[in-house]
Amino acid sequence: MLNLWFTEEWTPECRFSIKIKEHFHTEKSPFQQLDFFDSYEFGKFFTLDGIMMANEKDEFVYHDMISHVALATNPNIKKVLVIGGGDGGTVREITRYSHIEKIDMVEIDERVVRLCQKYLVQTSCKLEDPRVNLYFQDGLKFVEDAKEKSYDLILVDSTDPIGPGEGLFTKKFYTNCFRALSEDGILINQHESPYFDKEAGQMKRAHKRIKDLFPISKVYQFHIPTYPSGHWLFGFASKKYDPIADHKPEEWEKFGLKTKYYNSEIHKASFALPTFVKEMLEESE
Amino acid sequence: MLNLWFTEEWTPECRFSIKIKEHFHTEKSPFQQLDFFDSYEFGKFFTLDGIMMANEKDEFVYHDMISHVALATNPNIKKVLVIGGGDGGTVREITRYSHIEKIDMVEIDERVVRLCQKYLVQTSCKLEDPRVNLYFQDGLKFVEDAKEKSYDLILVDSTDPIGPGEGLFTKKFYTNCFRALSEDGILINQHESPYFDKEAGQMKRAHKRIKDLFPISKVYQFHIPTYPSGHWLFGFASKKYDPIADHKPEEWEKFGLKTKYYNSEIHKASFALPTFVKEMLEESE
Amino acid sequence: MLNLWFTEEWTPECRFSIKIKEHFHTEKSPFQQLDFFDSYEFGKFFTLDGIMMANEKDEFVYHDMISHVALATNPNIKKVLVIGGGDGGTVREITRYSHIEKIDMVEIDERVVRLCQKYLVQTSCKLEDPRVNLYFQDGLKFVEDAKEKSYDLILVDSTDPIGPGEGLFTKKFYTNCFRALSEDGILINQHESPYFDKEAGQMKRAHKRIKDLFPISKVYQFHIPTYPSGHWLFGFASKKYDPIADHKPEEWEKFGLKTKYYNSEIHKASFALPTFVKEMLEESE
Amino acid sequence: MLNLWFTEEWTPECRFSIKIKEHFHTEKSPFQQLDFFDSYEFGKFFTLDGIMMANEKDEFVYHDMISHVALATNPNIKKVLVIGGGDGGTVREITRYSHIEKIDMVEIDERVVRLCQKYLVQTSCKLEDPRVNLYFQDGLKFVEDAKEKSYDLILVDSTDPIGPGEGLFTKKFYTNCFRALSEDGILINQHESPYFDKEAGQMKRAHKRIKDLFPISKVYQFHIPTYPSGHWLFGFASKKYDPIADHKPEEWEKFGLKTKYYNSEIHKASFALPTFVKEMLEESE
Repeated sequence: MLNLWFTEEWTPECRFSIKIKEHFHTEKSPFQQLDFFDSYEFGKFFTLDGIMMANEKDEFVYHDMISHVALATNPNIKKVLVIGGGDGGTVREITRYSHIEKIDMVEIDERVVRLCQKYLVQTSCKLEDPRVNLYFQDGLKFVEDAKEKSYDLILVDSTDPIGPGEGLFTKKFYTNCFRALSEDGILINQHESPYFDKEAGQMKRAHKRIKDLFPISKVYQFHIPTYPSGHWLFGFASKKYDPIADHKPEEWEKFGLKTKYYNSEIHKASFALPTFVKEMLEESE
Repeated sequence: MLNLWFTEEWTPECRFSIKIKEHFHTEKSPFQQLDFFDSYEFGKFFTLDGIMMANEKDEFVYHDMISHVALATNPNIKKVLVIGGGDGGTVREITRYSHIEKIDMVEIDERVVRLCQKYLVQTSCKLEDPRVNLYFQDGLKFVEDAKEKSYDLILVDSTDPIGPGEGLFTKKFYTNCFRALSEDGILINQHESPYFDKEAGQMKRAHKRIKDLFPISKVYQFHIPTYPSGHWLFGFASKKYDPIADHKPEEWEKFGLKTKYYNSEIHKASFALPTFVKEMLEESE
Repeated sequence: MLNLWFTEEWTPECRFSIKIKEHFHTEKSPFQQLDFFDSYEFGKFFTLDGIMMANEKDEFVYHDMISHVALATNPNIKKVLVIGGGDGGTVREITRYSHIEKIDMVEIDERVVRLCQKYLVQTSCKLEDPRVNLYFQDGLKFVEDAKEKSYDLILVDSTDPIGPGEGLFTKKFYTNCFRALSEDGILINQHESPYFDKEAGQMKRAHKRIKDLFPISKVYQFHIPTYPSGHWLFGFASKKYDPIADHKPEEWEKFGLKTKYYNSEIHKASFALPTFVKEMLEESE
Repeated sequence: MLNLWFTEEWTPECRFSIKIKEHFHTEKSPFQQLDFFDSYEFGKFFTLDGIMMANEKDEFVYHDMISHVALATNPNIKKVLVIGGGDGGTVREITRYSHIEKIDMVEIDERVVRLCQKYLVQTSCKLEDPRVNLYFQDGLKFVEDAKEKSYDLILVDSTDPIGPGEGLFTKKFYTNCFRALSEDGILINQHESPYFDKEAGQMKRAHKRIKDLFPISKVYQFHIPTYPSGHWLFGFASKKYDPIADHKPEEWEKFGLKTKYYNSEIHKASFALPTFVKEMLEESE
């Protein structure tokens, strides 16, 4: 009966719209506008500045893919830094590994965390894990101040490079990540999408910057229908390990984690990119 | 200035909308309503009964993936039957193999073909190839009447199993395809999508029916953002060849075809399915 | 930034949509679904079962026109019954006449009143006036039980004749209103709209039923852009007074009320109907 | 099945949308973009630069109200100038008066006329009347060049004061109209709307400019649901005749014209304006 729709303009000429049950919270933080919704098709979800961040239906795809690829490449990761990721989904996946010792999470906007703790328990449920340290600071500054070689894994779970997420796509930021990573450190970063022009440009810029810094730099893909085009990428950059050559599926399987998207075949397969994506990335190199 | 939008309801609570430059043709054939559009983001496209069929921006994904996987598994395919595929994109890809001798295309609705020949030259451009025989008939009836073992490859490029496409998802149809295929024959079929409930149900039904008939039955995935959820599947069913075990990338590379989505890594990778998709398919078996 | 829209389908082929700042309350009462919004163009508004009821921008039109026409025809009205009108806007206008002694308001759904008292103070601000008696009952039953000739004015401020408002468009209801009205009593009722088919049918049915019962039965119009078509009507039915012949602008002006839509010229003018509306009403007689 | 919608943004936060059967013509003239549609609720309609001009369902309101008010005030009008009005609806109404000798129509964009003649016969059907002279010129220039006192009636049937219609809202234009009008001449002009801010501003500016020039200057209203807010106005400016004091309903009735919106009561009533509209106009004076 109520006819209320949230729309995200994937481009000025392409819209994705979700029927809303309730828009149960809105607020402007010093950084951005936060809105929380309940929907029929996607369950609860939240947006930052009107952009879909995470929803109950398909957040598992994003959080599986940002987390497990690195752990199945280097199962000895002990110290993890999550930049952004205020909904807690990335931390939730990382806490599933009992051998991990420390998870520092740096989110610029405390309100994202607090509201997700209140309204989006599915993702935020592990933020109280004793290994988790929350820092409400600028991620760019945090890695600048981080000790050299202090993390085995950095996960950049950022918004698009507009607004608060902008600094997390700069050369300066990636350089500091490199410095903060241990000898066998891995950087996973939000890598946008090849389909629409705006995200494709951001993808190419991010790729070029990381490629110039890390000896190993790959890109992998996955299906997340609620992000523009549903065709989304992460970057895998590393000082030592190659995600295919050093993939250790047997060791990862021993962790005994039940995952809904990720599995050992998907791990390898996700690095196989369509020709047009490969060409775009090569152009940018 | 003109604010005109085409919307496809991916579900009753999720809409995908495209800004239209011009809706330049509409017509009701005896089978369905056909509409042709020009758009900003996706170029020209057409719909059947209001459902997106093919657009200039991403039809290459669908037509690459329906065609080349089979040819890279059995490069000796000579006789091909295309069921549906009225826009001509599947035939276009198949005609690129000079060794292919015969391409029968059976489209129930001649108007789809004629209008695509007029308005969507990008896909329909090879329908005049001398090896192509057009039959404007019911595909279900055509395979029933086809000689035993008369095709090496059948490509089912159908609409969703509602309306004219319905028969192309029945056990009877698949049984007749099996009969019409040679000893080493391959069947590729439109396999819907795992993400939204309606398509997921259709996916499971199609999988069960084919699995029961063919010794080898696999499913592979790809990214096509203009279909519901952007996460789409084809089925690969075969009497003899396994798409992974019998993959012949070197032979396929010798054809020298430039493709925009498909490549030899994608070939293998596309058969690696997310865990939730694997589980859905297993449930249906 | 946030792209959230409320849509009312004026017909299945015509939509009116309002950009929403916040959807700050939703609830299902035993009678209907209630939703409260804040918007850019129309300020705060609420809907019942997804239908616009009142908004801060143009509620003054509706509440002026339902109230003052009767009072300028018979300035001696003392006892008023409001049926429906849960937002309080009609009562607010009536309370401005200090000579009025009693205002009974019968609203079937207490939650409408309570939520408007909380969220829509602009309309609900006079519900605490000592002359106002609130009854949370079925209006149909209330007038059935009302004493004969106990009211000088009955204002039927109902929803459309679907759902809880249905009984307030029946012959039985109008008959009881007639009985409950004093010798010079006036009935003003929500009379729908001539423009779209559904409301035009409701308009004709209501008119026929009242015409058959009251010696004087007229219809008057006004502009309220947030109701379907913006062209809306009230019915004026009376035992004795004619709204034009007995119009007493001088007496009404003495009340010294500042009104934003209604005035003495509008009073007369609103009974002049476009030819197509007159013909529709005549057809129904 | 086909889900295609035309939307007009009445304000950036309020949309009016019409379901489309077919968008059967689009073209850019040197002046503007022209689009023709067929719809379910409103029949055929056309837009200029994406703004609704006329549709088969309610054009009668606009064309009745622009034409008959002047003729019922001065039934001896012989020479008429229509500025704009390319759809022909205004001319159609004027040709119904057999005593009218000359109708000059000045439309800047010949394509509007030619396409309406092809596609919107309901409005354009009388453009071939022998008394009609079509001039495809700038209206502003045409009145500048017009002989003094050469017309009894000027009807300004323009678009909004943006784009080609802009000059038709200037003081210079109104001054030339005054000059071109006979001693008892009447000017009727498109006067926008009081409801939304943009149109209200245009209404006030137009009113001020005309008020300063003509001894008699009034504004009258009507319901046209497909224009922003549905609450629309015309200006009546005159050298001699007052539309109320000089209203000659008996003489007009003798013309024997069947009209669907206009009638002699509506004539008078339409000049009675809501208080908020009167105040807006007074502010501007």
